[in-house]
Amino acid sequence: MKPSRARFIAAANGQQTDTRPVWMMRQAGRFLPEYRAIREKVSFLELCANPELSCEVTVQPLRRFNVDAAIIFSDILVPIAKMGQELSFGKGHGPVLTPPVRTEEDASKLLRIDPSVDTAEVGETVARVRETVGDERAVIGFCGAPFTLLCYMVDGRGQKNFPETKKMLFRQPELAHQILSLVSDVLVDYLQIQIDAGADAVQIFDSWAGILAPDDFDCFAAPYATRVSNGVAKSGVPRIYFPRGVGAYLERVKSVPCEVVGIDWTQDLKTAADCLMPGRGVQGNLDPSALLGTPESLETRVRTLLSATAGRPGHIVNLGHGVIPETDFEMGRRFVDLVHEFGKG
Amino acid sequence: MKPSRARFIAAANGQQTDTRPVWMMRQAGRFLPEYRAIREKVSFLELCANPELSCEVTVQPLRRFNVDAAIIFSDILVPIAKMGQELSFGKGHGPVLTPPVRTEEDASKLLRIDPSVDTAEVGETVARVRETVGDERAVIGFCGAPFTLLCYMVDGRGQKNFPETKKMLFRQPELAHQILSLVSDVLVDYLQIQIDAGADAVQIFDSWAGILAPDDFDCFAAPYATRVSNGVAKSGVPRIYFPRGVGAYLERVKSVPCEVVGIDWTQDLKTAADCLMPGRGVQGNLDPSALLGTPESLETRVRTLLSATAGRPGHIVNLGHGVIPETDFEMGRRFVDLVHEFGKG
Repeated sequence: MKPSRARFIAAANGQQTDTRPVWMMRQAGRFLPEYRAIREKVSFLELCANPELSCEVTVQPLRRFNVDAAIIFSDILVPIAKMGQELSFGKGHGPVLTPPVRTEEDASKLLRIDPSVDTAEVGETVARVRETVGDERAVIGFCGAPFTLLCYMVDGRGQKNFPETKKMLFRQPELAHQILSLVSDVLVDYLQIQIDAGADAVQIFDSWAGILAPDDFDCFAAPYATRVSNGVAKSGVPRIYFPRGVGAYLERVKSVPCEVVGIDWTQDLKTAADCLMPGRGVQGNLDPSALLGTPESLETRVRTLLSATAGRPGHIVNLGHGVIPETDFEMGRRFVDLVHEFGKG
Repeated sequence: MKPSRARFIAAANGQQTDTRPVWMMRQAGRFLPEYRAIREKVSFLELCANPELSCEVTVQPLRRFNVDAAIIFSDILVPIAKMGQELSFGKGHGPVLTPPVRTEEDASKLLRIDPSVDTAEVGETVARVRETVGDERAVIGFCGAPFTLLCYMVDGRGQKNFPETKKMLFRQPELAHQILSLVSDVLVDYLQIQIDAGADAVQIFDSWAGILAPDDFDCFAAPYATRVSNGVAKSGVPRIYFPRGVGAYLERVKSVPCEVVGIDWTQDLKTAADCLMPGRGVQGNLDPSALLGTPESLETRVRTLLSATAGRPGHIVNLGHGVIPETDFEMGRRFVDLVHEFGKG
């Protein structure tokens, strides 16, 4: 196995590595001119539905950066869109799902899809990426966590605090649990097709977990992230769970079985790593805005970040959230190279 | 002193009370029909500039709810708008400050205002509210914290993660410190005029502190919140510091001198209170969305909240953030009454 792929897989399993592995959330995307060139020709959803183009976009950052892993280019709502809601992306807007799911009748119309058939294109994208990168880099598959997907399904779009979702949790909790269960079952199969197609690891994005009070996280987010994670445990591939915005109650995240926890940049990395020991590695957590700074300020920040986990295996370096679209890709390159240079030991 | 006012002031000073005091952030505002009736006649900024109307809007919730305190109706950007940037509120949008402050030249044009003259209307509003509520309820003055105000000054409007502000922090930190210093000096005087006019307490809103990584909070937020808080220490009125989104590094908030720390709803209240002991009370922290639930679910949540600080003085009950505009005001009333009923001891 080539160094990058081996390094990533070893760190994801908590083992010692030559230097720390690194990749960037949203490394494939708008900050790369070659991505924007493709998006001039196809819409975001056309891109997600096309394995050849999705593969191309997935590997674009590998040509620019020495990242140790590629993450499949897709969207967390791709499987949801097959369950009966229509997915669209307005110009300059985020995703919209219509009609929103708010009643028992709405929920009864949701389809228990078979991801190996209904989202076969995602499996094909993983297989193409695996073939393209071969043994050189790790390949990461992913899905949204059930709670985060519920937010979009119920509110119908990205919303500050997702009030309709909160209403459902607090007024119709059984209905919320019913939808979360269905989504969890679909996601297990959805991750499995990515693993079967060659993914070295899977990441479960719980991007909106942080809108929940601690007890609600325990009730509505953690049990379903657990079901998804347990559902692919037998595959043996490492699972990265990334619940954003839950740093104030990180100890509760330990109820979710996984090999690595994604840490956002509002947390002290050493405190987080201590909290999760033993048994779980950490992924993160440079403020993505640090790539908007000077090369010198970036170096200082990267060295501080690396010192937080010095001498302790199981740290996959990443940003604390996705690359900001306005980022100069030269700063992305610099970030990756700094990690490899100073991440030894 | 009447029970409500006495209860609020005692709790703010960490003393035992008959039952827990309670108020709601954004209790004066869009969720009240009587507020909307006034806003049909005047714009938001006209309202802020008019002490008679501001006073009326401030006391509106006191007629509906048994809250123990009134917070002055105004906006954190009112003093900033007098320093040289023009403030406007687009229909359905948040505040806009033009031109944004991004260079040394921009910063050199900022005015060191005299709040007793330039924001005299705010002092007059406090005096009117004090006269209107008399000894019945506590009166809270407020300001934005310097870092939070810097975000609006530099980005020019509310932004996800305030990228232009981050650029300034990371590329021109001296310039950021210079603006933060100037704003801090203005805010000391701005709070002092509110105290002189009769405020029983002041709250410093650091609404955007949570976009900062822990070390950046220590560098750009805490020192200036400290300057503002220290600047009014000799007045003896309790100071409530509310840095939203910093629950993952709450122990660092202890560097900011104050009597009470506002706790957002993503934190476990008992953990937060333990972290801040001794010497600081807590304010919060019900998820504002709990008021969108059923009366029964609200009662369960309020009782759980109260049990987190049972037997320990120094808890001002509040939401973990402002009232959501869609909230039914009957649920606001129920929240307040539940706190008084079950908040004894």
